[in-house]
Amino acid sequence: MARQVHRAAIFHLRGDPGHDRGAAHYVDDGALVVENGHVIELAPWSDRFAGEQVTHHRNALIVPGFVDCHVHYPQIDMIASPGGQLLDWLKDYTFPSEARFADPKVAAEAAPFFLEQLLRNGTTTALVFATVHKHSAEALFEAALARNMRIAAGKVLMDRNCPEDLRDTAETGHADSADLIRRYHGKGRLTYAITPRFAASSTERQLALAAQLLAENPGVLLQTHLSENGAEIDLVRATYPDCVDYLEVYEKFGLATDRSVFAHGIHLSSEEWRRMGVRGSAVAFCPTSNLFLGSGLFNLAAADREHVRVGLATDVGAGTSLSQLASMNGAYKVAQLQKQTLDAFRLFYLATLGGARALGMDDRIGNFAPGKEADFVVLDLAATPLLARRVAHAKSAADRLFALAMLGDDRAVAHTYVMGERAYSRR
Amino acid sequence: MARQVHRAAIFHLRGDPGHDRGAAHYVDDGALVVENGHVIELAPWSDRFAGEQVTHHRNALIVPGFVDCHVHYPQIDMIASPGGQLLDWLKDYTFPSEARFADPKVAAEAAPFFLEQLLRNGTTTALVFATVHKHSAEALFEAALARNMRIAAGKVLMDRNCPEDLRDTAETGHADSADLIRRYHGKGRLTYAITPRFAASSTERQLALAAQLLAENPGVLLQTHLSENGAEIDLVRATYPDCVDYLEVYEKFGLATDRSVFAHGIHLSSEEWRRMGVRGSAVAFCPTSNLFLGSGLFNLAAADREHVRVGLATDVGAGTSLSQLASMNGAYKVAQLQKQTLDAFRLFYLATLGGARALGMDDRIGNFAPGKEADFVVLDLAATPLLARRVAHAKSAADRLFALAMLGDDRAVAHTYVMGERAYSRR
Repeated sequence: MARQVHRAAIFHLRGDPGHDRGAAHYVDDGALVVENGHVIELAPWSDRFAGEQVTHHRNALIVPGFVDCHVHYPQIDMIASPGGQLLDWLKDYTFPSEARFADPKVAAEAAPFFLEQLLRNGTTTALVFATVHKHSAEALFEAALARNMRIAAGKVLMDRNCPEDLRDTAETGHADSADLIRRYHGKGRLTYAITPRFAASSTERQLALAAQLLAENPGVLLQTHLSENGAEIDLVRATYPDCVDYLEVYEKFGLATDRSVFAHGIHLSSEEWRRMGVRGSAVAFCPTSNLFLGSGLFNLAAADREHVRVGLATDVGAGTSLSQLASMNGAYKVAQLQKQTLDAFRLFYLATLGGARALGMDDRIGNFAPGKEADFVVLDLAATPLLARRVAHAKSAADRLFALAMLGDDRAVAHTYVMGERAYSRR
Repeated sequence: MARQVHRAAIFHLRGDPGHDRGAAHYVDDGALVVENGHVIELAPWSDRFAGEQVTHHRNALIVPGFVDCHVHYPQIDMIASPGGQLLDWLKDYTFPSEARFADPKVAAEAAPFFLEQLLRNGTTTALVFATVHKHSAEALFEAALARNMRIAAGKVLMDRNCPEDLRDTAETGHADSADLIRRYHGKGRLTYAITPRFAASSTERQLALAAQLLAENPGVLLQTHLSENGAEIDLVRATYPDCVDYLEVYEKFGLATDRSVFAHGIHLSSEEWRRMGVRGSAVAFCPTSNLFLGSGLFNLAAADREHVRVGLATDVGAGTSLSQLASMNGAYKVAQLQKQTLDAFRLFYLATLGGARALGMDDRIGNFAPGKEADFVVLDLAATPLLARRVAHAKSAADRLFALAMLGDDRAVAHTYVMGERAYSRR
């Protein structure tokens, strides 16, 4: 693709502003230079760009494409289903919804809709659960290839403590995952993620085979759930009575690695957090989901203390929005309830570079360092009358970003670019 | 206004579904008959209406206009300001923003914008704080009269523990309030609300005069804050050391009445809840605000136990949205974190009839009983692609309402009607 210059206010993070205040980089009138799908340069606007192919985005802010570190695409149709806490909600809504994906046509229709919704919300990369059905992962990978999106996903492994019609076996789950890795991992921008649902829904044999697959395939990720809800934790303890805590189950089988992304981690003990740090495992912080299911309040300070990588996530269908702006709104509130401070820079970090780091993709995406893949979002600072008015009263870049995080939704996304190409424009 | 028939799915509450499951009334294909600004009849659609002036709202749901039981209109420009907990946030953002209203032009410009935003969100009635400036209340009343909206409001009383430029005196506050009552209370659809900011920001003399005014003026409301935040409670205790708890300050001065609406009430003791029930005072539940400021989790079950009237509220500027659908989303999450169940019917109750009862206006508004004022909202069940898809998968009216509450925002408001007249239409 030919060289292009995007002119607007531009914001990204060069590091974690939680540790380094200088990491936030804001250019009030900037030029983002893109060529062949990659970032060439980010600079203040100057006349030297005037002769080039320039797109001037007025009253707009360009940020890196959002990274969603935990989301279930087959739950897109059951988002916002009332259902008490986690285990009842799984039984009453999630499993019946996922069972529909036994029909390949259901998956083939849902996957493109889901990815279009991600783009509509400015999300260009996600770590995604499919269902137990192999073809559900195929459908998502094919739809992601067609859109050239950097997507990591896997078919669910689940051979016990679940409905009969959503069950694989240790052997079929392993064989299907291995075949999907062979066919899709590293193809285009795809990453495979080995996906046991959670410790209690897999037999020991299934977890052992999953770990073997992880060890054999460099670059493949591991995604699962960890310490979300009291009843879930009790079930894991009852299922693995020889393990002292939830994390130890994953450790025992070799699944707690620096390529592992654990969703939630709300109720981890300080000892478990310490071991998360030692293992180098990452956590997906899912605020709207944690509030919706009443699971509890994620303790970001505890993760920070042990230098655990954290990325923000929607966790749809339990999350109530696919917008990472809505996740930032929720994350701020979760922090506030614990008297923790989360500023605008950190919120945007968690949804961009922080997420990329959690997925081990920060060599490719997450900010506008030269050479990175040019996934970015053009945010409209006047998307609604209230946002426009609030932004007009903003006193700083941080204030504008914060207003976007609190008041923004899919309307704030004017355009989403994937590898420098416009993949979505708001009508 | 001539007789009109609105055809659509229609939902309202005939009572509190928390106490009476039969209170929820849903008509899948209904006719809402309106004449001279009032509800004549709600009936299933039938051919007998065919010859009348019919507006057929397709793929829509009509509900009563939302009631917002606590909101600060002068904070509209500082919504979504990051600022730690309550008292710092007041000092850093709220007071400077309210000080701008010393200029009558600022108030005259903000009041219509605020009311237009309410209508855009389907809110037809609100209990509103102005600033300490008398003309700020005048501006709001004039804008509400021009729109024929049922608005209750008052100028803030605040003669200590606040910035010099936002201070009245016991005497001027009393005189200004008395004059505003005389000129606006009962005019059109207006109600005056005597408005001490909170116990610690008024002298004993100011509270005593406020109570005198309340006693002398039947139908006038009292609005203030109560037990929102730990530091605020400490300040009240230090200011009134002879009172055993926060509520007793208001009781002592005769301000805890059945015409009193207290915002928040998060940290009330069971003894205070008991006395709230005895006094017949109402509470405004402000979920997005309580989460945004990290104030805590409102205990609806405690209010229910003492039969305290509760209405839902946005509390903008601390609330993060003027949409009562967003408040329902927040309320559900606040309940979930306490393992309390809030279903769709109760959520809509709190934002319609429950709010009307909290404001003592349920003889006029809150549902579609014959004779009520015809304030209603036409909600678009296909406002966004995701909402449309979710609603298509809904299994019941309750499920559809819940999806609207979780996924809806101002886009879901197709039209807002005030006294039978269309006051807002989405473009």
